[in-house]
Amino acid sequence: MEKSKVKRAPKRGIYNSEEIYAILDKSYLCHISLVHKDYPVSIPTMYGRLGDAIYIHGASVSRLVTELEKGLPMSLSIAEVHGLVLARSAFHHSLNYESVVIFGKGKLVEDDEKLMALKAISDQAVPGRWEEARKPNAKELKATKVIKIQIEEASAKRRTGPPIDDKADYELDIWAGVIPLEKQYKSAVPDEKLNNGISEPQSVSRLMKNQ
Amino acid sequence: MEKSKVKRAPKRGIYNSEEIYAILDKSYLCHISLVHKDYPVSIPTMYGRLGDAIYIHGASVSRLVTELEKGLPMSLSIAEVHGLVLARSAFHHSLNYESVVIFGKGKLVEDDEKLMALKAISDQAVPGRWEEARKPNAKELKATKVIKIQIEEASAKRRTGPPIDDKADYELDIWAGVIPLEKQYKSAVPDEKLNNGISEPQSVSRLMKNQ
Repeated sequence: MEKSKVKRAPKRGIYNSEEIYAILDKSYLCHISLVHKDYPVSIPTMYGRLGDAIYIHGASVSRLVTELEKGLPMSLSIAEVHGLVLARSAFHHSLNYESVVIFGKGKLVEDDEKLMALKAISDQAVPGRWEEARKPNAKELKATKVIKIQIEEASAKRRTGPPIDDKADYELDIWAGVIPLEKQYKSAVPDEKLNNGISEPQSVSRLMKNQ
Repeated sequence: MEKSKVKRAPKRGIYNSEEIYAILDKSYLCHISLVHKDYPVSIPTMYGRLGDAIYIHGASVSRLVTELEKGLPMSLSIAEVHGLVLARSAFHHSLNYESVVIFGKGKLVEDDEKLMALKAISDQAVPGRWEEARKPNAKELKATKVIKIQIEEASAKRRTGPPIDDKADYELDIWAGVIPLEKQYKSAVPDEKLNNGISEPQSVSRLMKNQ
């Protein structure tokens, strides 16, 4: 756990994989970091988790996958803000959030594992959608590469609750509290070119219901 | 523009600073990438933009700021998802989003610029809050370092609109459309330890109104 040890605010650190995976499973967009020509590059992309592996995909010619398939060191991070924490002092302002950092190496996957991974990435954002959509054909599969990232090290951080001010500051006549931030899916907008009589599929109604 | 040139989907690329800054100004959380012991590390942190510079802050002993103050190459990225794009084909599923990648180098700032930067970081998340809160004292300022990142290269990407399927797929009886995703601040929760008679400040009501 050398690289991913939470050094600051150790009480915010989470190291058991069950909790870390639970945070990962609430999201589907990550930032991948890699070193390209001596420069650190961070690229947002979708992901899917299956067991101890994260899968991502990209156009076969994209820098993201052509760099990752070399198996070079990489990291992956996600961060979700759940609230603004307003303290009496500027210094103790904070965010309520959950974040995960993963270190590992990428590896190109093919055939059955590739299809399984594409389904996992699809399911991560919209469970059940894969079964409804037209599956990729040979040409589309060739145009897409899938990278498996075996999780070697992972850690998470979480802050919850009210602001924590210095003792003397509780006497100040300054408002303090938390402003919760929520993400919400709004009613789906059907494509204008949708054929007549096609109703909203289960994947969409389930996503709306489960949020 | 060598490093940040959008190579895939060039029609999604945005290179004028006015548009890029407008996207940056809608957010306040970024992912900073740097190389630490040959490993790329990505760390989520708050930021503030002032002109052609991004400011971030951190505990003086944190890896984030102690690495950045060395002036090593770094990058910064943000990504905001605005909707799930469900196409008829699995292949053409996408996200509606806005993202920015910035390349630059960090530099430690002090004194007046440090205070101005701390105010900018505060204003980025909650405009006007800085004026209401107790300002940092000497000890707090010593415990915090501020890094200025002069923007050397920046690019942004944006996808909007409905799914785009292959021509033949429009005949399929598969639902397609967009599920909009919105972020919303909910009513502020006052700290239980708030002194009697302190009402919600302007910064909070303005934030709720302007969202």
